[in-house]
Amino acid sequence: MHTCDLLLAADYVLTQDHERHILEDAAVAVKDGLVAAVGKADEVRAAWAPARTLDMGGGMIVPGLINSHSHVSMTFLRGRADDLPLMQWLTEHIFPVEARLTPEVARMGALLGFAEMLRTGTTACLDMYLFEEQVLDAARTAGIRCMGGEVTFMFPSACCAGPEEALQRTRAMAERYAGHDRLSVCVSPHAVYTTTPDILSRCRDLAEELNLPLHIHLAETASETEQCLSLFGKRPIPYCADLGLLSPRATLAHVVDVTDEELELLAQSGAVVAHNPSSNMKLASGAARIPAMLQRGIPVALGTDGPASNNRMNMFTEMGRAALMHKLSGGDPTVFSAQEALDAATLGGAAALHAPGLGQLVPGAPADLAVLSLREPHMLPMYNAVSQTVYAATGMETRLTMVAGEILYMDGAFTRFSYDDLLREADSLRRWTLGRA
Amino acid sequence: MHTCDLLLAADYVLTQDHERHILEDAAVAVKDGLVAAVGKADEVRAAWAPARTLDMGGGMIVPGLINSHSHVSMTFLRGRADDLPLMQWLTEHIFPVEARLTPEVARMGALLGFAEMLRTGTTACLDMYLFEEQVLDAARTAGIRCMGGEVTFMFPSACCAGPEEALQRTRAMAERYAGHDRLSVCVSPHAVYTTTPDILSRCRDLAEELNLPLHIHLAETASETEQCLSLFGKRPIPYCADLGLLSPRATLAHVVDVTDEELELLAQSGAVVAHNPSSNMKLASGAARIPAMLQRGIPVALGTDGPASNNRMNMFTEMGRAALMHKLSGGDPTVFSAQEALDAATLGGAAALHAPGLGQLVPGAPADLAVLSLREPHMLPMYNAVSQTVYAATGMETRLTMVAGEILYMDGAFTRFSYDDLLREADSLRRWTLGRA
Repeated sequence: MHTCDLLLAADYVLTQDHERHILEDAAVAVKDGLVAAVGKADEVRAAWAPARTLDMGGGMIVPGLINSHSHVSMTFLRGRADDLPLMQWLTEHIFPVEARLTPEVARMGALLGFAEMLRTGTTACLDMYLFEEQVLDAARTAGIRCMGGEVTFMFPSACCAGPEEALQRTRAMAERYAGHDRLSVCVSPHAVYTTTPDILSRCRDLAEELNLPLHIHLAETASETEQCLSLFGKRPIPYCADLGLLSPRATLAHVVDVTDEELELLAQSGAVVAHNPSSNMKLASGAARIPAMLQRGIPVALGTDGPASNNRMNMFTEMGRAALMHKLSGGDPTVFSAQEALDAATLGGAAALHAPGLGQLVPGAPADLAVLSLREPHMLPMYNAVSQTVYAATGMETRLTMVAGEILYMDGAFTRFSYDDLLREADSLRRWTLGRA
Repeated sequence: MHTCDLLLAADYVLTQDHERHILEDAAVAVKDGLVAAVGKADEVRAAWAPARTLDMGGGMIVPGLINSHSHVSMTFLRGRADDLPLMQWLTEHIFPVEARLTPEVARMGALLGFAEMLRTGTTACLDMYLFEEQVLDAARTAGIRCMGGEVTFMFPSACCAGPEEALQRTRAMAERYAGHDRLSVCVSPHAVYTTTPDILSRCRDLAEELNLPLHIHLAETASETEQCLSLFGKRPIPYCADLGLLSPRATLAHVVDVTDEELELLAQSGAVVAHNPSSNMKLASGAARIPAMLQRGIPVALGTDGPASNNRMNMFTEMGRAALMHKLSGGDPTVFSAQEALDAATLGGAAALHAPGLGQLVPGAPADLAVLSLREPHMLPMYNAVSQTVYAATGMETRLTMVAGEILYMDGAFTRFSYDDLLREADSLRRWTLGRA
């Protein structure tokens, strides 16, 4: 009989292990922040003596979902402007407010977004924004796993005088969080049209020097391609390939406008694609060629993008919409199955965050998980746990969210921060934004 | 000072009145099942003496959403089979079970689906299925507003020996529910490829004789068009027009495969289109030309279709997906705005159910409404109540659902039936289905 910290029992455990086992009447033993055992409840109970037992009857344990492309601070702009042409939306509603962004607004916006993530079963994210140090501070407050990068532009931002400062901040954050359990840092050039070849090369060099992942928006729209062609004489993916940016350390957000040859380049590179179905639909960017990527073995993750273009930070929403949009755009109902959507939101996310232990509930993996209620009417009857997770669940069935063995949300209560204070802060965010209009 | 039954106060009331007023610090007075007054909370309080007051601080009152195309009993098959080619899905997984359907399974499946609707702010639906008498019985149990029709095929169903019996049952139901407050009946020929010209003519005649609406699947896929052309020498919409089926009494589900000329036919006819975005995406039926319909003044409603092809009965899901899919398919982020999506789910639904008082909170309208919590992290900050309702809300924010002034769901509890019993029935549905596999 081994000891463990917690034994969590439920009707189902969706393991996402190599064989995608789904266990019925099952349990997860948690010890020192890791999964110690997963199996039939009676076997786990017989083998492990827990300090605490949580019986989540009527529940299903799933790996924590991973949001592989976010701008979580932008939660402060949720619903501020919708249904507009991209440039009008950016230049009239987003950029003017971002130009006056403060560290405190970035921190409060991030905490509100992290609350939404935890409330809806997301345990990790890959984030890029201004004032990313405040985002990581908010992640520390919330307890969520976060890889963050200070967005690097060729022009000044509210946070940085220019790319040099953004990279300095990236280096300082990387030193600060080296070896941290939940927080980590990557290099985050914004995009090909907001940087120069020199800036991208320096980003690549810094990532290699510090052995950090690199996170960039790439090939998001046809107009990005046109811009890249006119500025640099190449389409975005060959341009980045020639600069040495496409490598196993890269996570590429969007990747909508690609040719077959570019898919081959991506497949050879080892880079991960972070697909953002809601954002690509809402901004009319197009349908990313995700099924073609999967056929070529390109690792695919899912992300929400910023809540100003979504307007949620909810990975259940992304799984369902991804599965549906690719059936529609491919004209084939067998495309991008529920299992592929779940894989992208779990194992694909682990690839995007360059944290291969995440996204599955197997012995030795970090104990990052969520428990969904199966007692809501839309979660019944239960024929197929994967179908229910991807097509029926909204995320709001989440009863418990755990990161590294620590319960961060349970049955309406956040454990790490005062939600009442956060409600007040959300109102102050609103007043701040309206004051900048 | 007038008396009323209930005064419901909240942070916002989304009226959906003619000017689409959104009221802050507002209240709704309810009397005899109708909205007696809507206005600023202090003014409503000053004018009305309620028997009961409900202060939903931190909440938003919205008109109850209307599901304009459902097969609610099919909830018993939710998640039974996904990601399959349409014919394989139908012939291997749906038809064999439906062939052995029993009245009791139809009733239990419907009650489970109605529970999901009420849980997610839907107060009315337009339903078509086998054993529709049992569906209406379940609607009576749940208290939801439902217009139902016995599906009419050219072949026998588990319920009816043939079309004659389906029409007899329709006539009997229409007599039974004549003048009923919440339950009503329509004529429901299944589709052009499952009926004959003679059957459709008899459906039209019955609808005219009894002054009933007519609800039919129409122009759902390109293969339906091919079939209709080969059987009857016409595309589905001209075929139905020539049979006199396109009229203001018709609600046409899907209408995906249409030409410009057919849109003109529809616009002239006064028929209502019930658009099913999730189903059209999941089955890869295509993107209905909803923006083109709106431009021509065709009334557009939203529906879930059956939960076997969705897999939800959640109108918040449909509003969000509709807005996003039309931006994607139109390549334009300004297409099908949040307001248009909300209009389709409320006022469009009223048109689809031929119940023009529904879908808005104005004096004299039926008191069909929902209250959404604004205290969930994803409902903050609040800049725009319509954006929040369509793009942020999942439906699970619903704290209260009311039909005809009667609270049917509030804070986790259904008022009309035992939810514990329903959970057990859902399990028996599962065992029944698995026993038929």
